[in-house]
Amino acid sequence: MSEIRTLALACKDAAQAMFALDTETKRKLLHDMAAALEEQRDTILTANARDLQQAAARGIQGAMLDRLRLDEARLAGIAKAVREIAALPDPVGLVTRRDTLPNGLEVERVRIPLGVIAMIYEARPNVTADAAALCLMAGNAVILRGGSEALHSNVAIASALHAALEKHDIPTAAVTLIEDLRRETMVELLQLSDVIDLAIPRGGEGLIRFVAEHARVPVIKHYKGVCHLYVDATADESLALNLLVDGKTSRPGVCNALETLLVHRDVAPSFLPKAVQALQERGVELRGCERSRALVDGMRPATDDDYAAEFLDLILAVRVVDDLGMAIGHIQRFGSDHTEVIATRDDQAARRFMQAIRSAVVMVNASSRFSDGGELGLGAEIGISTTRLHAYGPMGAEALTVERFIVRGDGQVRHPQSRL
Amino acid sequence: MSEIRTLALACKDAAQAMFALDTETKRKLLHDMAAALEEQRDTILTANARDLQQAAARGIQGAMLDRLRLDEARLAGIAKAVREIAALPDPVGLVTRRDTLPNGLEVERVRIPLGVIAMIYEARPNVTADAAALCLMAGNAVILRGGSEALHSNVAIASALHAALEKHDIPTAAVTLIEDLRRETMVELLQLSDVIDLAIPRGGEGLIRFVAEHARVPVIKHYKGVCHLYVDATADESLALNLLVDGKTSRPGVCNALETLLVHRDVAPSFLPKAVQALQERGVELRGCERSRALVDGMRPATDDDYAAEFLDLILAVRVVDDLGMAIGHIQRFGSDHTEVIATRDDQAARRFMQAIRSAVVMVNASSRFSDGGELGLGAEIGISTTRLHAYGPMGAEALTVERFIVRGDGQVRHPQSRL
Repeated sequence: MSEIRTLALACKDAAQAMFALDTETKRKLLHDMAAALEEQRDTILTANARDLQQAAARGIQGAMLDRLRLDEARLAGIAKAVREIAALPDPVGLVTRRDTLPNGLEVERVRIPLGVIAMIYEARPNVTADAAALCLMAGNAVILRGGSEALHSNVAIASALHAALEKHDIPTAAVTLIEDLRRETMVELLQLSDVIDLAIPRGGEGLIRFVAEHARVPVIKHYKGVCHLYVDATADESLALNLLVDGKTSRPGVCNALETLLVHRDVAPSFLPKAVQALQERGVELRGCERSRALVDGMRPATDDDYAAEFLDLILAVRVVDDLGMAIGHIQRFGSDHTEVIATRDDQAARRFMQAIRSAVVMVNASSRFSDGGELGLGAEIGISTTRLHAYGPMGAEALTVERFIVRGDGQVRHPQSRL
Repeated sequence: MSEIRTLALACKDAAQAMFALDTETKRKLLHDMAAALEEQRDTILTANARDLQQAAARGIQGAMLDRLRLDEARLAGIAKAVREIAALPDPVGLVTRRDTLPNGLEVERVRIPLGVIAMIYEARPNVTADAAALCLMAGNAVILRGGSEALHSNVAIASALHAALEKHDIPTAAVTLIEDLRRETMVELLQLSDVIDLAIPRGGEGLIRFVAEHARVPVIKHYKGVCHLYVDATADESLALNLLVDGKTSRPGVCNALETLLVHRDVAPSFLPKAVQALQERGVELRGCERSRALVDGMRPATDDDYAAEFLDLILAVRVVDDLGMAIGHIQRFGSDHTEVIATRDDQAARRFMQAIRSAVVMVNASSRFSDGGELGLGAEIGISTTRLHAYGPMGAEALTVERFIVRGDGQVRHPQSRL
């Protein structure tokens, strides 16, 4: 048997142990993990220093190097996040429906863990602790396949998590870190459809496409967010301006930042000049359609590529539209099923927008930046699904479980004539 | 563009039209479909006669030929089933949770259709109408890829469904029947990950494995059911006997029939002789472990292959176990995650069984034969998922939808300092 299959099968056995844990035990386990991360602080920071050194030697710098960096404060933050996950409501065992059928059968829908979750991610070592904690809290075992830049940090973090698992007599394979980071090994992992219940890729589009193309296990994708703000004819312009500035400038590098502004032609002459001024003051580059460029100066022409782009930067595409229908058509064509916002005072327009737009999150008069598990009340988030299956939008602990059926009877049979 | 991609993209456009339909329109559409099936009865039966003739000429006979056959009564049954689906509660628009966050944001979880569902199935032409009706009732468009034996019947049925779609000005591509039944075309279909939201294969294990191996779209598998009945030390023996006879003999060819009986050693000497007699009277062949064979005559020895088998026939594997733990271990090793039954009077044993067994349906003192959407209150069923993701166990209309987020605010921004 290949090494990766052996590791995965051990993780599957550990999933069986995780399946049976009660809420209190899981909470204690996570608290012990947080404590172990703090106790093994020096080891983890030393390992991280080694990763940083190697990354710098390979020419990595700027934001990417920063994402890799751990320090005392960040490590304390990681431990804190694990404790916060321990405080979440336990989704396992939740009875979501209970019916008594005419024949007396009592049918319950009860949430159980998925089983084995494979997380495929890139440079950020905090994901190692975060994702493991959230998977474990939902009663799963987890296989972690991080980026090579963070390998030493990830090994040190996993080792702290293992110490806590050992303390509770749970197989350490419940948190399995893959250290063989060759692509072919990842492909092999992604094909273990008899072992892995779900793969979650988190990172750039290249990684996600690679996982989607090679997987034979179920994948929940977290693709790009090409988020739109549509300013309707009846919008409160100052409200819309606030949503625009927050959506584009408060953190342009994340998936719930705005990428395109659509403005109804009736408000464009009044709204666009104010919008452009506010954005340009904040260093935003604007790319507009002809009609918007006729209304304000200083915009480059926008191409279809601009409308399809996730800039992740201080760039915004702009388009004036004739009406709500044209705004919807634009989003249907260029959208990424992530998050769309309508600014309007017209309830019927808001309803039409929601009925036509199939994105995971639709906001009415609120900033796209709230499209995040923490902000929407999920507590913690393992990612934002743009796959319209199982979970759609921000995924919390509950999205790492599934409903099954528990049926209680007192001897009911389907064909009473078979009764003896 | 390839022909299959063109067809699928038209279906995706139709999905957009389906997305916006209200409940009443969908119900009327389904009633018109049922009426069209009745009106076009002669055309459908003529087409079916052609399929039957060709199948007979190719040597198909027995149960398989019977599954292909339509007659007036069966066609009336199909129309009736479509009307029953029209009467189901509409899962679309269902608000499953509503919270108001401290910042005033109102967050709702609302069910929306998945989009485009590809059904891959075999000889039974009733699936063409059933699956289409259930997918449409949940607001989806559907691509149907049936078996070649039923092609003429399927074309005639789809044509009746199209007449109803036209009456409602919905693109007929909302029900797209694939008539090019080459394997390579199916593979191409299964790779259209930008178009198809879910593929559901229904049929033999070979078909399901083929789909799972070639798909790049999400697949919910409906594998075999190796269902177990465990008779615990405290079981009511006459109750257990009823569950056994119903589970094995009431319809042995279906996935929720029992395949293996596990008996606690304390009750085996009393229970097994009665069980064997009742089953043998009904023509069931028994294959047992050494301990069970020592207790009763007339059993062949059981092999590991027998314990792993979905017999779909009047054959039962039998094993005497030392205790609940050994029964659980057996099911963990040989089970198929479908349906398991425990007969017991001991609540704690029932609880331990549920906590250790991760199958989609767990029955306490009820027949495995109830593991079916209709019997468990779902109304209609598109299949029984053994994939522990999205839906697990019998899938009804609701399993053809997904929850998304609707957020209503009055100008909330994430970083108030970006407020103008």
